[in-house]
Amino acid sequence: MRCEVIAVGTELLLGQIVDTNSAFIGEQLSMVGIDSFFQSKVGDNRLRIAQAIQIALGRSDAVIVCGGLGPTQDDITRDAIADVMGVPLVRDPLIEDRIRAMFMSRGRQMPSNNLRQAEVPAGASVLPVQPGTAPGIRATVAAGGQDKVIYALPGVPWEMQEMLVGAVLPDLSERAGLASVIGSRVIRTWGHSESALAERLAPYHDELDQSGRATLAFLASGIEGLKVRLTTRADSHREVQRTLGREVDRVASLLGDAVFSTDDESMEEVVLALCESQGLTLGTAESVTGGLIASRLTEVAGSSRVFRGAVVSYASEVKFDLLGVRPGPVICDEAAGEMALGACRVLGCDVSVAVTGVAGPDPQEGHGPGTVFCATCVDGEVRPKMLRLPGDRRRVRQFACISVLDLLRMRLSKRV
Amino acid sequence: MRCEVIAVGTELLLGQIVDTNSAFIGEQLSMVGIDSFFQSKVGDNRLRIAQAIQIALGRSDAVIVCGGLGPTQDDITRDAIADVMGVPLVRDPLIEDRIRAMFMSRGRQMPSNNLRQAEVPAGASVLPVQPGTAPGIRATVAAGGQDKVIYALPGVPWEMQEMLVGAVLPDLSERAGLASVIGSRVIRTWGHSESALAERLAPYHDELDQSGRATLAFLASGIEGLKVRLTTRADSHREVQRTLGREVDRVASLLGDAVFSTDDESMEEVVLALCESQGLTLGTAESVTGGLIASRLTEVAGSSRVFRGAVVSYASEVKFDLLGVRPGPVICDEAAGEMALGACRVLGCDVSVAVTGVAGPDPQEGHGPGTVFCATCVDGEVRPKMLRLPGDRRRVRQFACISVLDLLRMRLSKRV
Repeated sequence: MRCEVIAVGTELLLGQIVDTNSAFIGEQLSMVGIDSFFQSKVGDNRLRIAQAIQIALGRSDAVIVCGGLGPTQDDITRDAIADVMGVPLVRDPLIEDRIRAMFMSRGRQMPSNNLRQAEVPAGASVLPVQPGTAPGIRATVAAGGQDKVIYALPGVPWEMQEMLVGAVLPDLSERAGLASVIGSRVIRTWGHSESALAERLAPYHDELDQSGRATLAFLASGIEGLKVRLTTRADSHREVQRTLGREVDRVASLLGDAVFSTDDESMEEVVLALCESQGLTLGTAESVTGGLIASRLTEVAGSSRVFRGAVVSYASEVKFDLLGVRPGPVICDEAAGEMALGACRVLGCDVSVAVTGVAGPDPQEGHGPGTVFCATCVDGEVRPKMLRLPGDRRRVRQFACISVLDLLRMRLSKRV
Repeated sequence: MRCEVIAVGTELLLGQIVDTNSAFIGEQLSMVGIDSFFQSKVGDNRLRIAQAIQIALGRSDAVIVCGGLGPTQDDITRDAIADVMGVPLVRDPLIEDRIRAMFMSRGRQMPSNNLRQAEVPAGASVLPVQPGTAPGIRATVAAGGQDKVIYALPGVPWEMQEMLVGAVLPDLSERAGLASVIGSRVIRTWGHSESALAERLAPYHDELDQSGRATLAFLASGIEGLKVRLTTRADSHREVQRTLGREVDRVASLLGDAVFSTDDESMEEVVLALCESQGLTLGTAESVTGGLIASRLTEVAGSSRVFRGAVVSYASEVKFDLLGVRPGPVICDEAAGEMALGACRVLGCDVSVAVTGVAGPDPQEGHGPGTVFCATCVDGEVRPKMLRLPGDRRRVRQFACISVLDLLRMRLSKRV
């Protein structure tokens, strides 16, 4: 069973709104095991909406059209579907009564425009779930010698979501005769490039492809790490989880140290959990990252059980006066180490990370952008490390953040 | 001139990533006056990518394909374009050298996979703007008796954006022989709701609509403020700028104090510029924002001329011991004021902002999530203010950040 998604709205094409509805629908379809190979956006134009529906019907079994069901002159999804079906629009007296009643109950006069929403293509039916004023529509059409189905849903996200989950997915699953369940798990890694991971997993990837027991995808996600996603399908939720568990273990053992989470946790969550389980408090001393590490750590709810605070020592004097860095060069191993020690002392924490370096655009102390010295302090022992990071100012800061937390993670996970 | 956008990636269809690239490209196309009537998403499948390109070429003059140019086996946009053109892929020695040099400069071994990125369809050319390892491609094909053009851009947003603006838009505009120039300016505001701004601008908005000399749009942008965008079109760049200048002045005078920038600057940039022009250094003391304010300030290149540092006093003891807050409740006016004074003393800066409060999900000291006490310190004089902020943990932190910087902005702009 193949189902396409068409999002309707000129504002989507102009980038005034990002189309998140299609992503939601695509995710829901994949969860119930329905393929969605194409998704498109089209403006508020009757001819072009009809064209898009026709193309979709030509290569798929079902189409979900999202948006253009409101009461204004711009809302012409109903008309376009009627054109595709070759039928006129007819007013549905039940919808008309319902819309009138909704306005009455709110003590408001119904603008006559709203009666447009009571019109449906002749022969189409109204979806049984109706959370708002815009009624969802279901129509069957013959195409390519087959009966295919068009669903029209409103573009307002919560209305669309209720109708999709409550009416469209059950109907589609029934049409498809689907028994199978789909599921996926995300493994997060750091420290290797996408192509290096791909190379290390190549034989396993081939084996997976041949057996068909799961699929594998890579996803570079900046400060969130490089993700490896495993997806599989089976008859029951339980079987899906069992297969995923086995394959996740395989990938984790092939990638070793590079894996920081097999459950899609962020690096911050992993480091906070490691500290908490070992009864350690954490602090940061930040120059080039300027508070980014602290900000990311404190975005995690409950971080206050572990995180004590940070000293952002952007000016050199703050490094010298507050953190006790010895006057001299501040972009070097020694300064990073002294910052990490200073953080533990000043903030009263057990472990710390520290970062100093050059984010750019200008060089500093003879170092080009991307040169970063970081340090971790565990049990009073400091370990510095130099990094060469790619990208612009923003990326250098983000990569510095995840890189130094990863160093702390590796030290803590070997500590017990 | 019609240009379609095709976003490539199975993860887009599955809703694992929301496709924001198409929205960006659509906006940029509309800004230079190029129509984009259809946009689509397709998975990492060679045949279907080629199909999508063919459909697009059948109804438009140009296609921008975004994504699928990486080094892995999944990245097959190059192959699909070659299929559409009916040519093989050939290795470009210049790109090969460039990729090798990039890995060398980072001191890393190049995985052999990366050489895939040096392959281009025979007859296609490489875009002159190459910010990352993935080279952008430009190919012309005959379709429907016309020469049409395909651009392939990487899916990584910053790389795509640099190539689009630097290479694709100029090329498309030249092909379209576009005479009329479109331009826009963004006014940023803080402290009023969208509906309050709309109400204040209503008569002016009506006047604009009737005259047709510019269009007005609102855009709520979280920590970036609430944006008001003016767009106009004329025969020359100079005339566009003149009209926009006049209208921006009108809007700014109607909105008064709420406007923090008439040139799309962030609140951080505005505050840093105010400090610099008055010869003041700046620091922050942060609890609920956990370093977010410092992190935002230091994201601005050149912030080191003004910003000295931050104390993130997440644990109460850090507030007491390091910042000199008197022991007692820490979510109140007094604590915020003492934090601001402490920041100036400890960091040796002239002015400061401080924030303490509850981001949630749990209440603290009897205050619910969204209760925030902040303070500014200018010329040694502290001014506290209580805020009630809406939203979840993330939004409370973001709104606290822009709100306290806005208080400092207003104090500094009245200081001279």
